[in-house]
Amino acid sequence: MKNILLASTSTVYGSGFLDYLLPELVQHFKDCNTLLFIPYARSGGMTHEEYTAKVALAFAKINIAVKGIHEFENPVEAVQNAEGIFTGGGNTFVLVSQLYKNQVMDVLAEKLKSGTPYLGTSAGSNIAGLTIQTTNDMPIVYPPSFQTLGMIPFNLNPHFIDSEGPDNHMGETREARIKEFHAFNSIPVLGLREGSWLAIKGNTITLKGHLKARLFRQNQLPEELESGADLSFIK
Amino acid sequence: MKNILLASTSTVYGSGFLDYLLPELVQHFKDCNTLLFIPYARSGGMTHEEYTAKVALAFAKINIAVKGIHEFENPVEAVQNAEGIFTGGGNTFVLVSQLYKNQVMDVLAEKLKSGTPYLGTSAGSNIAGLTIQTTNDMPIVYPPSFQTLGMIPFNLNPHFIDSEGPDNHMGETREARIKEFHAFNSIPVLGLREGSWLAIKGNTITLKGHLKARLFRQNQLPEELESGADLSFIK
Repeated sequence: MKNILLASTSTVYGSGFLDYLLPELVQHFKDCNTLLFIPYARSGGMTHEEYTAKVALAFAKINIAVKGIHEFENPVEAVQNAEGIFTGGGNTFVLVSQLYKNQVMDVLAEKLKSGTPYLGTSAGSNIAGLTIQTTNDMPIVYPPSFQTLGMIPFNLNPHFIDSEGPDNHMGETREARIKEFHAFNSIPVLGLREGSWLAIKGNTITLKGHLKARLFRQNQLPEELESGADLSFIK
Repeated sequence: MKNILLASTSTVYGSGFLDYLLPELVQHFKDCNTLLFIPYARSGGMTHEEYTAKVALAFAKINIAVKGIHEFENPVEAVQNAEGIFTGGGNTFVLVSQLYKNQVMDVLAEKLKSGTPYLGTSAGSNIAGLTIQTTNDMPIVYPPSFQTLGMIPFNLNPHFIDSEGPDNHMGETREARIKEFHAFNSIPVLGLREGSWLAIKGNTITLKGHLKARLFRQNQLPEELESGADLSFIK
């Protein structure tokens, strides 16, 4: 029975790393003394060690010890033995490349299906969808596939934003980009605004946080979904 | 001797499709009666036929007849026989996938090296760089490679913009994304603002339009380059 939280962002404006999620995380990881952190999405600025230290600092507030997957000799076993797992944000292409390179993608999917509590933020949430084809990130490395964990039967667009750039900029809006995705793919896409997250318990998917989310489906008008809504109908 | 124009955008705010470039295009395509248009980047909203008709309308103003590559039975021959070539914008992943699928990537590179005048806008400019790893587009299809034409010894970031989204949004800025690219790659990246273009004559690369461009190099501070500058030093 799946037990998964997928957050749009690790950090909301004006607040510390993971702070807004801590009340939820206390409950979510209540049976965990330790947490496996996957820092693979990190793409410069911080080492895996530094990123893991940052995460450890946040989880120390709720008395959970954190160890990075890069500290284990065998990352597959690290996943298999984890009490709880958190995959942080960064670059989704880097994350996916590393998961495949370390042969962790399939074992992670199996582990999450078995009920191990999981938290994803940003790129770490993106990989819970069917593919990373609705990421906002730059394709700075070439992954062997765009396919990901498929813990939900749709894709996410984290950090969803209603407009990008000034009005006189000719680059596409986020909504236009997702519409382009639907010219080639039928997978639904949920635009998850910063401060929103999904709680997945078994087959029930609930929208949490105080914001609405925006659902995009092929050949349909986008739809605003209320906080607290049961999203299990999306497929 | 290469003869190439690479524009950040087809359209500047408040002006018609290609209008701001027409004075340059008259000169650039002065020996062409016909132009081959590559609409492959199109990702919904318009068919290849409609996109080609839009381009034909713009080029009619300077008395050049336009035919879309999709109208030819053999796209490789269409490229080989073209007097001039224009690749329009849309989604870079779709464009690159189509170029590979139709086996046009290599022949297009050869054709441009031989001096056939080329215009690219947005995605059509992106592919003139070494890779598409600094595109802004969503990875809505999975191309067989991120490698592209290599007509310039660096990458472009079209539609370059100094800030994205409101200040309280936690998504990365364009500059942060390019910095992530440089955590994994040493290829220089030129941020080309809307209204700027590069003119490539042989081995000389000149920044055109009235705006500055922003050069990003691995482990170096970004640098603003003046309009009119010779950019042949970037490699």
